[in-house]
Amino acid sequence: MVWINMSVERIRQIQRYSAKRNQDPQLSTDQVAIEEPLEIQLDGEPLAVIMRTPGNDLELVAGLLLTEELIQHSDDLLMLEHCRDPEETNAGNIVKVKLSESCLERIHLSKNTDRMTRTFLTSTSCGVCGKQSIASLHASTPPFPNYESTCIEDVALFSEKMKTHQTLFDKTGGIHAAALFAKSGELILLREDVGRHNAVDKCIGSLVLTEQLPIDNCSLMVSGRTSFEIVQKALVARIGTIAAVSAPSSLAIELAQESRINLFGFVRENGLNIYASERLESQA
Amino acid sequence: MVWINMSVERIRQIQRYSAKRNQDPQLSTDQVAIEEPLEIQLDGEPLAVIMRTPGNDLELVAGLLLTEELIQHSDDLLMLEHCRDPEETNAGNIVKVKLSESCLERIHLSKNTDRMTRTFLTSTSCGVCGKQSIASLHASTPPFPNYESTCIEDVALFSEKMKTHQTLFDKTGGIHAAALFAKSGELILLREDVGRHNAVDKCIGSLVLTEQLPIDNCSLMVSGRTSFEIVQKALVARIGTIAAVSAPSSLAIELAQESRINLFGFVRENGLNIYASERLESQA
Repeated sequence: MVWINMSVERIRQIQRYSAKRNQDPQLSTDQVAIEEPLEIQLDGEPLAVIMRTPGNDLELVAGLLLTEELIQHSDDLLMLEHCRDPEETNAGNIVKVKLSESCLERIHLSKNTDRMTRTFLTSTSCGVCGKQSIASLHASTPPFPNYESTCIEDVALFSEKMKTHQTLFDKTGGIHAAALFAKSGELILLREDVGRHNAVDKCIGSLVLTEQLPIDNCSLMVSGRTSFEIVQKALVARIGTIAAVSAPSSLAIELAQESRINLFGFVRENGLNIYASERLESQA
Repeated sequence: MVWINMSVERIRQIQRYSAKRNQDPQLSTDQVAIEEPLEIQLDGEPLAVIMRTPGNDLELVAGLLLTEELIQHSDDLLMLEHCRDPEETNAGNIVKVKLSESCLERIHLSKNTDRMTRTFLTSTSCGVCGKQSIASLHASTPPFPNYESTCIEDVALFSEKMKTHQTLFDKTGGIHAAALFAKSGELILLREDVGRHNAVDKCIGSLVLTEQLPIDNCSLMVSGRTSFEIVQKALVARIGTIAAVSAPSSLAIELAQESRINLFGFVRENGLNIYASERLESQA
């Protein structure tokens, strides 16, 4: 087996805004977790693309194949290795798999039974490197022409405003939230769900059903981390600002910057990090 | 449009263990967020099953269809409503959709272009109610015959032990972790990833590749919440104990109880909640 070591965090140039100091955001750096697509190929054909942090890729694929009940034992894995094609520049993001005959037979048979209605998970992203994923997304959904203007002082207050409306979180301590804020800083709506993406989809779906899309100068706030997929959803819904309680991934930052979406992280009353904005772009 | 209101949290009987009091776990109650499958039907055919917290289902479907670029506007939605079949007992978990001709054409055309290689997301779960999902999973992966014995005092220490090994989290503040612990309470391995499920799959994949499965008396600890899918992965890998820093969903608890998997939540040095265990079952 070939083991490819990849770095798993990346230093990014950011701006740090502190509400206490009441001054312009200051240039700083931040270490962010890397998110990159991984394509799993079964007998040379793409089986799935998943977003993951590089490292232990073969474990990831072996574990996924087992927990998705495609294999039962390591003996079922006739081949499990990274792509070794010298012309493939993203070989580290491709894992090639060959499964035993008995295993393929079992998968094939189970697909034909009513019991096996579940489908192997697929991803909404495509391409075997982040740049390809972004290019492919931009082919159908172009970037914003410009960054929308935002008031950082208002964004810093989103987190507290959201908390006061998270009724389910207060009761259960185990639910995600997403909220939409107007340009005035006012909370438009908040949705909670056990799934992070569901909470975002409920917010966006509300805009669809009330025919408020396209919406100008609207911000999306999420209770957790910002992944590629969260930025993707905002882009498709043409929401120009994303704020999050926690950190963004490397690919979320790249997609936000290339789409000209304002991206804020670690948003608190007393400050926030700026990962993508007009001012950061001109300063960096 | 038909709006169906459903309650979104549920009271569960649990046990609360406090390390300070040094006494047997005490019966208590906890409010947990509801997780239930939602089937989206396009022209009467299942399109996807997603796990979600009931409520605002039509928003969720409209938002998902938009952000997955299956629709562009509310006009594309010729029908969007819950199932109204009086014989369907889980009508609240089925949303029926009809899309405009132009929309179907666009989806059909884009499927035939190289650009559109992304696949609409599917879920690993099946059935339109939690009970069906559990029954379907148990058909291929039976429940444990008995709960494994666990030492609660040891489990309470998992969280601190995990933290000392979360090197990426320390640096980035934005990454999930999963860890495996031996019966002795010793940490076997820890994996970090931007994806919760990936971190779990990497741990399980390590057991596959080092041929350590089946493994007795091994515990899985996750840094976040416990969803149906996390319990499902543990069940398939035959891991009998799950501990989590945060809360479980309703369906995670049901699957754990029906699979006889010990399930702990809000695990801290000074105590934890017990959502599924032999003792809880006999006491409740």
